[in-house]
Amino acid sequence: MALWDGRFEGAPALEMQEFGESISVDLNMWREDIAGSIAHATMLSHCGLLSAEEKKQIINGLNRVAEELEGGWRPVIEDEDIHMAVEGRLHALIGPVAGKLHTARSRNDQVATDVRLWLMKALDELSGAVERLVSSLSTCALEQGRVLVPGYTHLQRAQPIWMGHQLLAHAWAFVRDASRLRDARNRHNSCPLGAAAMAGTPHPIDREMTAELLGFAEPTPNAMDAVSARDHVQESVAACAILAGHLSRLAAELILWSSTEFQRVSLSDDWSTGSSIMPQKRNPDAAELIRGKTGRVYGNLINLLTLTKGLPMAYNRDLQEDRHALFDAFSTTMACVSVMNGCISSLTILPGPDLNGDPALATELADYLCSKNVPFRTAHHVVGQIVRHCEREGLGLDDLGLSGLQTFHQAFEPTVLEWLSPEAAVERRQSLGGAGWAQIEAQCARLQSLTSRESK
Amino acid sequence: MALWDGRFEGAPALEMQEFGESISVDLNMWREDIAGSIAHATMLSHCGLLSAEEKKQIINGLNRVAEELEGGWRPVIEDEDIHMAVEGRLHALIGPVAGKLHTARSRNDQVATDVRLWLMKALDELSGAVERLVSSLSTCALEQGRVLVPGYTHLQRAQPIWMGHQLLAHAWAFVRDASRLRDARNRHNSCPLGAAAMAGTPHPIDREMTAELLGFAEPTPNAMDAVSARDHVQESVAACAILAGHLSRLAAELILWSSTEFQRVSLSDDWSTGSSIMPQKRNPDAAELIRGKTGRVYGNLINLLTLTKGLPMAYNRDLQEDRHALFDAFSTTMACVSVMNGCISSLTILPGPDLNGDPALATELADYLCSKNVPFRTAHHVVGQIVRHCEREGLGLDDLGLSGLQTFHQAFEPTVLEWLSPEAAVERRQSLGGAGWAQIEAQCARLQSLTSRESK
Amino acid sequence: MALWDGRFEGAPALEMQEFGESISVDLNMWREDIAGSIAHATMLSHCGLLSAEEKKQIINGLNRVAEELEGGWRPVIEDEDIHMAVEGRLHALIGPVAGKLHTARSRNDQVATDVRLWLMKALDELSGAVERLVSSLSTCALEQGRVLVPGYTHLQRAQPIWMGHQLLAHAWAFVRDASRLRDARNRHNSCPLGAAAMAGTPHPIDREMTAELLGFAEPTPNAMDAVSARDHVQESVAACAILAGHLSRLAAELILWSSTEFQRVSLSDDWSTGSSIMPQKRNPDAAELIRGKTGRVYGNLINLLTLTKGLPMAYNRDLQEDRHALFDAFSTTMACVSVMNGCISSLTILPGPDLNGDPALATELADYLCSKNVPFRTAHHVVGQIVRHCEREGLGLDDLGLSGLQTFHQAFEPTVLEWLSPEAAVERRQSLGGAGWAQIEAQCARLQSLTSRESK
Amino acid sequence: MALWDGRFEGAPALEMQEFGESISVDLNMWREDIAGSIAHATMLSHCGLLSAEEKKQIINGLNRVAEELEGGWRPVIEDEDIHMAVEGRLHALIGPVAGKLHTARSRNDQVATDVRLWLMKALDELSGAVERLVSSLSTCALEQGRVLVPGYTHLQRAQPIWMGHQLLAHAWAFVRDASRLRDARNRHNSCPLGAAAMAGTPHPIDREMTAELLGFAEPTPNAMDAVSARDHVQESVAACAILAGHLSRLAAELILWSSTEFQRVSLSDDWSTGSSIMPQKRNPDAAELIRGKTGRVYGNLINLLTLTKGLPMAYNRDLQEDRHALFDAFSTTMACVSVMNGCISSLTILPGPDLNGDPALATELADYLCSKNVPFRTAHHVVGQIVRHCEREGLGLDDLGLSGLQTFHQAFEPTVLEWLSPEAAVERRQSLGGAGWAQIEAQCARLQSLTSRESK
Repeated sequence: MALWDGRFEGAPALEMQEFGESISVDLNMWREDIAGSIAHATMLSHCGLLSAEEKKQIINGLNRVAEELEGGWRPVIEDEDIHMAVEGRLHALIGPVAGKLHTARSRNDQVATDVRLWLMKALDELSGAVERLVSSLSTCALEQGRVLVPGYTHLQRAQPIWMGHQLLAHAWAFVRDASRLRDARNRHNSCPLGAAAMAGTPHPIDREMTAELLGFAEPTPNAMDAVSARDHVQESVAACAILAGHLSRLAAELILWSSTEFQRVSLSDDWSTGSSIMPQKRNPDAAELIRGKTGRVYGNLINLLTLTKGLPMAYNRDLQEDRHALFDAFSTTMACVSVMNGCISSLTILPGPDLNGDPALATELADYLCSKNVPFRTAHHVVGQIVRHCEREGLGLDDLGLSGLQTFHQAFEPTVLEWLSPEAAVERRQSLGGAGWAQIEAQCARLQSLTSRESK
Repeated sequence: MALWDGRFEGAPALEMQEFGESISVDLNMWREDIAGSIAHATMLSHCGLLSAEEKKQIINGLNRVAEELEGGWRPVIEDEDIHMAVEGRLHALIGPVAGKLHTARSRNDQVATDVRLWLMKALDELSGAVERLVSSLSTCALEQGRVLVPGYTHLQRAQPIWMGHQLLAHAWAFVRDASRLRDARNRHNSCPLGAAAMAGTPHPIDREMTAELLGFAEPTPNAMDAVSARDHVQESVAACAILAGHLSRLAAELILWSSTEFQRVSLSDDWSTGSSIMPQKRNPDAAELIRGKTGRVYGNLINLLTLTKGLPMAYNRDLQEDRHALFDAFSTTMACVSVMNGCISSLTILPGPDLNGDPALATELADYLCSKNVPFRTAHHVVGQIVRHCEREGLGLDDLGLSGLQTFHQAFEPTVLEWLSPEAAVERRQSLGGAGWAQIEAQCARLQSLTSRESK
Repeated sequence: MALWDGRFEGAPALEMQEFGESISVDLNMWREDIAGSIAHATMLSHCGLLSAEEKKQIINGLNRVAEELEGGWRPVIEDEDIHMAVEGRLHALIGPVAGKLHTARSRNDQVATDVRLWLMKALDELSGAVERLVSSLSTCALEQGRVLVPGYTHLQRAQPIWMGHQLLAHAWAFVRDASRLRDARNRHNSCPLGAAAMAGTPHPIDREMTAELLGFAEPTPNAMDAVSARDHVQESVAACAILAGHLSRLAAELILWSSTEFQRVSLSDDWSTGSSIMPQKRNPDAAELIRGKTGRVYGNLINLLTLTKGLPMAYNRDLQEDRHALFDAFSTTMACVSVMNGCISSLTILPGPDLNGDPALATELADYLCSKNVPFRTAHHVVGQIVRHCEREGLGLDDLGLSGLQTFHQAFEPTVLEWLSPEAAVERRQSLGGAGWAQIEAQCARLQSLTSRESK
Repeated sequence: MALWDGRFEGAPALEMQEFGESISVDLNMWREDIAGSIAHATMLSHCGLLSAEEKKQIINGLNRVAEELEGGWRPVIEDEDIHMAVEGRLHALIGPVAGKLHTARSRNDQVATDVRLWLMKALDELSGAVERLVSSLSTCALEQGRVLVPGYTHLQRAQPIWMGHQLLAHAWAFVRDASRLRDARNRHNSCPLGAAAMAGTPHPIDREMTAELLGFAEPTPNAMDAVSARDHVQESVAACAILAGHLSRLAAELILWSSTEFQRVSLSDDWSTGSSIMPQKRNPDAAELIRGKTGRVYGNLINLLTLTKGLPMAYNRDLQEDRHALFDAFSTTMACVSVMNGCISSLTILPGPDLNGDPALATELADYLCSKNVPFRTAHHVVGQIVRHCEREGLGLDDLGLSGLQTFHQAFEPTVLEWLSPEAAVERRQSLGGAGWAQIEAQCARLQSLTSRESK
């Protein structure tokens, strides 16, 4: 018998019960539900709405329900939702006094509180995991990243860089992801409990106290907003989606780098798998799955944005759907961050290709001419002709020699040959954040200090 | 020990195994997997690649695995996927001959076949369910739909209609949904089995035979496309998404119509629920949940579109993610169609509001003037002034009387009063598909013939 | 002739030029492009890379180009993008010295800088506009919001509230929107200029100086990240999307409230339109259009998330597509906020319906019983029976009288009749953020102080 | 003065006019608007609702408006929409008789008709363009596709194939795209004109006649559905989105194939561009832009799905937003198909890498063992060990020689060396749709017959 059946002549159809139940999803936050009830009972007693004895009975009872849940007890579908399940079990354990717990609250503010509590913890855990990934990337860059490789634009070889420069580009994106997750936490760190159905309650409760007991910064300021808002869920999942996008870019590079054609890295056996039909395969499955799960998080975001589109105030049953998307987004993103961290921590960076005379050094020739006071656009044009010539003749840029170069422009001098060395090319790039090794070391130091500061 | 471990020195990390496993999702199609294997074995034997005895052993073994699965046996996570699980179990039951089953196929074409088989059935079931909903709407329109209500544009009362006219507007949208699902079925009714990894197989197999045994119209024409394509999944889920959008529109109307302010319908107790704090509530939860699940299907679509964006050929592990979204989209949409059918089948349409003199009749006055040869734009302007006057004075349009109307335009004659009756207004609209009752009856007849023809 | 044509034998096809041009979109940020070039020239001169005379020529030239653009000069499609257009025009005006401006930069960091400059300004403007909307809602709540209306859950009448309570629920959501926009601004307030193609530059430039000249907090820390990242665009548009969702909810309420059935508000003529065929219509078009544009912003977000999915480093031409979505998202959202502000500022709140004896007061009866020490769940059940009785008999809750109520439970006393007054019901709800008027006044004071503080 | 201003005291604010105008978008379909009006006038006259003279005046007037629009005349923003603009101009040209044209229709069915007319044409054009692309791929496969390359799974070399096999995999996906576009056309080939506002019209019109005059298969069956439905737009854009996804996959391959590391193809200068800073670059911009525009089409789809979510019947102003997304989706997709066709038509396929002894031949060794009656799983394991050995020793599979192979399994015989040739490996794969050349030729023949049949 549902708790609200006084007015009804028939009960909902079984199919309706199954369609509407949220227990299978909300079980995920039974700890938060019980913690919220304990805080609520404590506050009610403090405000004189429960006697000391009633409070004691209720809290002891809630702790027993928690133990039972920990021990494997599970609600049935007729319980509808986790709140009804816990309260029903409490009633079975301690009798009618259990009914007093629902004073000055409704399921609307209860579920809103449960979700916020769950979310605060999830945001903490995810931002922590992202910082560990930043740290792994930084360590990998510093320890293995001094390998000369071509940097790409348009997937064309552009300029030589140290491999570490590219790893750090990803690291900085993740730094912003962690910061986004923390901002979401700060913005939504408020407690809906006591908002009741949407209009507050006539009982003389102390919402600051409940908020404090549960570790929130403050109570939510408007009771209707408290139960209707879902932007805390949307913003958090948007942060997950952007993070998933960043993971997909790094994953795509790992897949490219693992190919026979690129051969930049070797993934450890821990994070690779084989083929049922092609014995030679060593597939970068971990990276592919991370890339493949991107859309799942994007989809969860669109789900949540669609959910509230055009929805009038206040609570509508539609809103129950938010947890499915929220939990899936966080568990998917968390798993991807963790697996990516595993991949990066165990990555082997392979020796780079021979870049001597590679067309990726063409900019160096242009820069050389600039340094001899040739205007940039002229230099660019001259070097374009050199490149075309080499391509036609099948030559490297270093195969022309000084005299060859001079046939294209008289400003070339003997120093150009040393200038054309790939390592010299990279090491010249010492502008702040540039590809030179000193810049990489400086970034790593800054990243380590950022992530250790944040995780304190 | 994974089947592909000949080359590896270490095994994947446990976390990688959990991250990469698809069994928990793919169990959903174990029947298809076994059916595919039986057809494959039958074809292999027909082509001389299995002896009659080997075929018999394998098919008997597969049938035993099916029985075990039916009886509750479940693979473990180390089995990776449903194909490995079934083959592994087969091996345990019948020994090394099981290994011959994988001749001339790979997991790539196997999973592609399983998904297609599952999809053909799911498309059939869903289009059937949609047709039952069309039928319920048509029945409801015919049996209860002769109630005068305002039709709305911009949620403003526009013109009187029979309630049935509006129910049928939704029915026709669902007719197109069913047709879309059938088109998807026809377009993708081809069998990937035998495509192997992506290049076909050197064995002399008969792909037409396998296709026919499994009920497909033909084999897929290109082995790489066969394992890489996902547009059958995307198109099917897009059809679900458009259908979910249509459901959300009807759900939104049910919610509006159930409000105290509109009072157009009463949902049966089967499909309503109450409130834990407000005893008078009779909430249209079924409709709200249907509306709320819209985004979930949209999200699944975006998931699937994102999945293949920029993905090179051929199979990439990313593609494994398609089933999660596919299964969720179909089970969600199917449940919504079924619950909506329950709501409509048990719906009570309430008496409509009194529309005599309602501003929604203003168009009638304009049409009346047109029928007296006043140009439409002039008539429109005159009636605008009448409406403004009535609004200011708090009058109904029928309160002005003939003389009152004539002060606005001399073309009004005594017949205008009869003309202004709401029922007369509706019944004048006998253009094809218009709001007149005969048009509604004609549509219902056509809908019933459409849905009974399709479901044959 | 394109500036990069030294190596090519043919030019791109005209269709390719049209397909690839970004000028039509990027013209939107010519001011930022020129500002960036002026800052770059200033820094180059400071670092000895331009002579004082060259710097003067270049800056004067850039100012002339700006004047020409202000005066209506427009690039042609052959210019490809705004950077080439400005530099080309500069060259025409001041000759070859123009070529020196491109020292130590590339189009990659140039466009990244232009977009960031544009974005910082757009985020400021949008958060300011949102705060004006918060202020309008707060003013409307305070000045017109003391009207008794039913609050809804499930679109069913739930409990009486002051209209202002509901307006403020929306206001607080917008407060968080403004805060999200400011967080995005703070996170991405860094200058990419000097990152060059993706590896930095060998020239001894001063990136801190450029950053400071352009009003950024700092230079970006990694040159490859500087040109490849798009999360600043994604995060900003995600904030727009969440804001658009909030606007859609308020718009949906305005539409509902404008219906004949609800009659809660009257939109001013400024923000309504009529019908070409139905003269009585007064359509809430502004609100409908706001609601209708929600998907446009959601779509822009999905566009941007899809854009970078699986994209390897560093710059790829795909990334050029970001501005189309960014500009459209901001201009759409900005227009919606502004129009909504117009609607709210000129809104008339109508007298509410008579709520005496309305079922929405049922909770009051339950609370009354609780106050007489009846356990909540018992009270809830009793009141459910009262409501069902009244519904059957067509009575209001206040039609039963004391004796009628007492037939359901003996705890009812004469005070229950006063207790049942809708106004008393609302005014009892004085918990923090509750529906009582004092709570509304307190929220308005807090909102006004928040928005005036932010807009300083 | 708007045509509907009879009732209003004030006009909409200028900002509201700008916010609500649709002319800038709807100008795109002025031809359809005028064609619809001419058909409507013809039908009205046929049904006796216009005299022959009135019909003549109106049609002549409409033709003059068409000429003016062709000649550059443009409506102003006060005209609101294209229908009002055309009718207003008609009125200016022929006087009050113009007012008779709006008999028995409203702007709701007018715009619905315009959009359908536009859409039928756009679907035709796009499916035609897709078929041209299929034809180009097929031609390229046949003429240049007999180049041995590795086929990939997980971006790891898997098995040798002819390049043409991979091109045809893409071609078949596009075949389904064209078929999807045609299905959409067939499903929505019905005429809304005469549905009026949503209830039909009292005038004795002939909707079959209008439908036939405009080339539709039939009139829409329900007047409310006719003006409220948007699934024709959603389905068509979903088909564009799936097509855009297919284009993104081919584009991604072109980008990969153009890299120094892969070197599979050379894009013609027509479809490449250079770099402002790196003279050696030859960027596959066309392919990158195609890939980058994928999200734009996805975004348009989400826009349209969001638009109708939860929208009650019948016309709501929100629906006006559909054209922006529709037109952008089609123009973007059409441009991408056309540019892709340009790329493929001018593509040069380069000689493939040396695959002798490549690990991609490992499956051949396993198949060889199978052909000697070794069970597949045993063979797979043995070959895994061979591959691992070769990798460790830096050997090709063909470096082991017969005796080397026999140390791993005694079933190897001298024929294995011939068997290991890459070309032999490909040519063995003659299962239907397999990689063998005869299969490619057969597919090309089928594709050419499909596309020439369709384009008749």
